[in-house]
Amino acid sequence: MLTKKVALGLSRNILTLNCDSILGCVIAARRFSENNFDILSDEKKNRKQLVILGTGWGSYSVLKNINKLKYDVIVVSPRNHFLFTPLLCSTTVGTLEFRSIIEPVRGVHFRNAQDFHLSSALSIDTKRKVVHCQSEIHPKKEYDIQYDKLVIGVGAVSNTFGIPGVTEHAFFLKELVDARNIRDRIISNFELATQPESSENDKDRLLHVVIVGGGPTGVEFGAELYDFLTEDVSRHFPVLQHKVKVTLIEGNKILGSFDKRLREYAEKKITKRKQFEILQAFVAEVNEENVILSDGTVIPCGLVVWSTGLSPRTFTKQLPFEKDKFGHIITDNKLRVQGISDESIFALGDCADIDVMPLPATAQVAERQGRWLAKYLNGQTEKEFEFSNMGMLAYVGGYTALSDFKPKALKFTGFHSWLLWRSAYLTRLGNWKLRLQVPVDWTKTFIFGRDISRF
Amino acid sequence: MLTKKVALGLSRNILTLNCDSILGCVIAARRFSENNFDILSDEKKNRKQLVILGTGWGSYSVLKNINKLKYDVIVVSPRNHFLFTPLLCSTTVGTLEFRSIIEPVRGVHFRNAQDFHLSSALSIDTKRKVVHCQSEIHPKKEYDIQYDKLVIGVGAVSNTFGIPGVTEHAFFLKELVDARNIRDRIISNFELATQPESSENDKDRLLHVVIVGGGPTGVEFGAELYDFLTEDVSRHFPVLQHKVKVTLIEGNKILGSFDKRLREYAEKKITKRKQFEILQAFVAEVNEENVILSDGTVIPCGLVVWSTGLSPRTFTKQLPFEKDKFGHIITDNKLRVQGISDESIFALGDCADIDVMPLPATAQVAERQGRWLAKYLNGQTEKEFEFSNMGMLAYVGGYTALSDFKPKALKFTGFHSWLLWRSAYLTRLGNWKLRLQVPVDWTKTFIFGRDISRF
Ligand SMILES: Cc1cc2nc3c(=O)[nH]c(=O)nc-3n(C[C@H](O)[C@H](O)[C@H](O)COP(=O)(O)OP(=O)(O)OC[C@H]3O[C@@H](n4cnc5c(N)ncnc54)[C@H](O)[C@@H]3O)c2cc1C
Ligand SMILES: Cc1cc2nc3c(=O)[nH]c(=O)nc-3n(C[C@H](O)[C@H](O)[C@H](O)COP(=O)(O)OP(=O)(O)OC[C@H]3O[C@@H](n4cnc5c(N)ncnc54)[C@H](O)[C@@H]3O)c2cc1C
Repeated sequence: MLTKKVALGLSRNILTLNCDSILGCVIAARRFSENNFDILSDEKKNRKQLVILGTGWGSYSVLKNINKLKYDVIVVSPRNHFLFTPLLCSTTVGTLEFRSIIEPVRGVHFRNAQDFHLSSALSIDTKRKVVHCQSEIHPKKEYDIQYDKLVIGVGAVSNTFGIPGVTEHAFFLKELVDARNIRDRIISNFELATQPESSENDKDRLLHVVIVGGGPTGVEFGAELYDFLTEDVSRHFPVLQHKVKVTLIEGNKILGSFDKRLREYAEKKITKRKQFEILQAFVAEVNEENVILSDGTVIPCGLVVWSTGLSPRTFTKQLPFEKDKFGHIITDNKLRVQGISDESIFALGDCADIDVMPLPATAQVAERQGRWLAKYLNGQTEKEFEFSNMGMLAYVGGYTALSDFKPKALKFTGFHSWLLWRSAYLTRLGNWKLRLQVPVDWTKTFIFGRDISRF
Repeated sequence: MLTKKVALGLSRNILTLNCDSILGCVIAARRFSENNFDILSDEKKNRKQLVILGTGWGSYSVLKNINKLKYDVIVVSPRNHFLFTPLLCSTTVGTLEFRSIIEPVRGVHFRNAQDFHLSSALSIDTKRKVVHCQSEIHPKKEYDIQYDKLVIGVGAVSNTFGIPGVTEHAFFLKELVDARNIRDRIISNFELATQPESSENDKDRLLHVVIVGGGPTGVEFGAELYDFLTEDVSRHFPVLQHKVKVTLIEGNKILGSFDKRLREYAEKKITKRKQFEILQAFVAEVNEENVILSDGTVIPCGLVVWSTGLSPRTFTKQLPFEKDKFGHIITDNKLRVQGISDESIFALGDCADIDVMPLPATAQVAERQGRWLAKYLNGQTEKEFEFSNMGMLAYVGGYTALSDFKPKALKFTGFHSWLLWRSAYLTRLGNWKLRLQVPVDWTKTFIFGRDISRF
C-alpha cells in the first residue's frame, strides 16, 4: 500500500522505480520483524496455556525463547516494555534517553493483542489454577486468568529496612519513572539554586546528592553524576560547579561483590574526586531536606537516592509457597516451585532462589534462567539449570570502568574496561532499534552534552 | 582534561595519538558551541539590562540575535527550553521523541547561569521598571527583576470559550507535557480496551478520539493518529484496528486559513478515510466520557483534544496596557507597546498585535518579529517591521501534505508536499543536535514503527 502511494506520488518521475525498490526493501525489513502467527493460528490443537508474570529479565527471556507452537502464551505485567536495567543510571542525567533502553513487548511475541495484560498479579489459586489480576490502568477492574503452566518472574522492590521517611522522601532507581523523577529533581534543584531567593545555605543543600547504598547501582549512579558534573554543570551552571557535592553512604564496603583489587581501585578513584565522599555509616531517618545518621548527624541534601538491596514484593509475600529467610520463593534446580507436585509453577530471577544453589540477584542470572526454562518447557533439555558467572562490569565515571571476570587474569580497570562496558551493553541490547539508538545517544552526549530541559 | 584522561587510560597503547587527535577535534567542535563570554565579561560598561519574557518563537528569536556586547540579557520563562511547535503533533503518537524537538536555552546564550530564571512574570511595574516574578519550582518564592528594556513574548493559552468541562477533561496541545499526556492516554486506552473486563461499548468509547477545532493543529494531530492507526495499531492491536474512530469537530470550515483548493483537497483526503469523520457542529460540554454537542448529541469518547484557537494568558490580561478585542497587547510597527513613551517595552508574537497590521498567530510571524526586534535593539536597523507571508505547510497523513505559498503557482498537495514538509522543518530546526535526531527518529519510526511503551 505504501509503495503504491509513493509510486503514485512520484508518478512521471524518473525516481519512481528506484524509490520503489528501496522502499520495498525497507518494508520487507520491517515486515521481517513482525510476527507470523497467521500461518500458525490454525494449528490450535492441544496447546497448553502458559502464563508468564512479568516482563523483566527473567520473564521476558522466557517469552522470547518459548516455542509458540507448543504454548498459548499469556503475559501479565504492569509494564508493557522490557527495561534494560544496566543502563538505567545513564538516563538519570540524560547520558541516554529514556526510550533508548526499553523494548515494547507487544507486536512480535503474541498471537492476539489480548494475550498481553497491562495488569498486576494479585494472587494465585493453585487449586483452580488461576491467577487473579488487577488492571494497571483501572485498579477497580479485577479478573482471573487460567493457566496450565505458570512462570513467576516479578522481581523485587527496593529494601527500605522500614527506615522512617525513605518511602516518602527518597528516590529509588528501579523503573524508568524513577529515573525520570530523579532527572527532573536534579534539573529543578539546579534551576532553583540559581534563583535570587536562594541563600548560600539553600544552594549547598540543593546541590548535595546523597546516595545510600554502595552496591553497583549506587556506584554507577554516582559515576553518572560525576560525568554530568564535570561535563555539563561546568557548561550550564559554572557558578554552581564548586557547590555540588556527592556523598555515598554505605554501612560496609562499597562494591562488596567485586574482587578486592577492583574494589580498592574504585574506592581510590571515587575518593580522589574533590566533591565526592564515601561515608561508612547507617541511615536512621530521611526527611524532606535531610538524611539523619544513626549517630545523630544531620546531613542536609536536595536529593536522596536509595539503593540498599532488595526485598520481596507484596505479591510474593502473600504467595502460599515456601520461602527462604530473604522472602525468596524456593525452587529446585529445575526452577520448580517447592510443594507443587504437577510441575505447573516455576519461579525465577530476583523473586526466587534455588535451594541447593543460592545465586546473586542479577540480570545475568535471571536472563539465563529464563532461557533455560524456555528450553526446558519446549522439551529441548532435561538437564538441570546450571550457572557459572560470566563476570561483572561496573562504570565508575570519567571514562573508566571495572570488569571482573572469573579467571584471575581477567580483572581490568580503567579505560579498557570502559570500552568493554560500552560494547558489552551494546551487544546485549535486545533489538536493533536500541542498538541503533544507544550509540546515537552516546555520540550526541559526547558532542553536544546532556539535555537539561525540564518539562 | 578529557584528552588527558583518555590518554592516560590508553597509555602504552599505540592508539593514544590517533584517539587523542580525534577526541581533540570533537572537543573543539563541542567547545565551539559553548559561549565565550569570558572574553567579554570585563567589558561591563554602560550595558543596558534587557529582560526577555518567554522562551518561545518570538522571545527565543530575540535572545539568539541580540548583541550581548550591548546588553546584559536576562530571560524569565517557566520553560528552560525552546519548543519547536510545528512538530509537536508528531510526538503525541511517538513518530518523534519528546526531546528531539526541544532546545535547552541554557549554556550558549547567557553570561551567568543566574541570567536565566525558571520563573513566570506575574506583573510589571512601569514606574519602578521592574518585573515581578514567581519561581516555577517554588511558587512561594517571588522577587523583582530590574529592566532598562523589556520584551514581552509570553504567547497565549488555548481558548476554552468557557465551555464547561474543557479544562478538566480535554487535552490541549501546546507544550511537551501535553503531548506526553496525550501519548500516555492513547496507549492506556488501547491497553485497557484489550483487557477482559472491557465490554464492546467500552472499547468503542475508549478508541474514539474527538478533536475539537479544524485548524492546522487539529488536522495535523488527526494526520498523526491516522498514520499511527494504519502503521502501528495494525501491528500491535490488530483486533482493535476496525474499532478506532476519529471525529474532527469544527464549527466552520477546516483549515480556514488555507487556499480553497488545498482546503478541499484536505477535506476529501480526510473524509475518504474509513474511520475518520468531519463534523460541522459546536461543543456545549465535555465530561469524563463524552463530548456533548449544542444540539444535545452525546458522543462517547476516550480522548478529547482541544484546539480551537487562542486566548490571552492571565499575565497578559492584567497588564495595564491597551489591548485589542482579542486581548492582544497593541503595539506600533516597531513593536513598541502603546503608551510607553521611552521605548522601554516591546511585545511580539501571539500575545501582541500591531495596530496597523494585524498578523496571524504563527511561529513564522513571531520568529521574524524576534529577529527584527533584535536587529532594531542592536542598532542595525531603523526601518519598521514588515511581514510577507512565506507560505504555509500542513501534514494531512499518509505521506501527503499541503503547501500554500504566496504565488498562485506554488500550491502543492500530496507526496511532493510531504517531502517539502519534512525538509522544511529539518532546515528550520534550530541546532545540529535536533537536525541529527529528528531524521534518526523518522527513520526509526519508518523501519521499526512507533514505541507504544507506557511508563
Ligand atoms: C539500576 C539497576 C542497575 C542494574 N545493573 C545490573 C547490571 O549491570 N548487571 C546485572 O546483572 N544486573 C543488574 N541489575 C539487576 C537486575 O536488573 C535484576 O537482577 C533483574 O532485573 C532481575 O530480573 P527479574 O526478571 O527477576 O526482575 P525484573 O527485571 O525486575 O522484572 C520484574 C517484572 O515483573 C513485573 N511485575 C512486578 N510486579 C508484578 C506483579 N504483581 N504481577 C506481574 N508482574 C509484575 C515488573 O513490572 C517487571 O516487568 C541492575 C538493577 C538496577 C535496578
Ligand atoms: C501544536 C502546534 C503546532 C503549530 N504549528 C505551527 C506551524 O506549523 N507553523 C507556524 O507558523 N505556527 C505553528 N504554530 C503556532 C506557533 O507555535 C505560535 O504562533 C508561536 O509559538 C507563537 O510564538 P510566541 O513566541 O508568541 O509564543 P510561544 O512560542 O508560545 O512562547 C511563549 C513563551 O512564553 C513563556 N511564558 C508563558 N507565560 C509566561 C510568563 N508569565 N512569564 C514569562 N514567560 C512566560 C512560555 O513558557 C513560552 O516559553 C503551532 C502551534 C502549536 C501549539
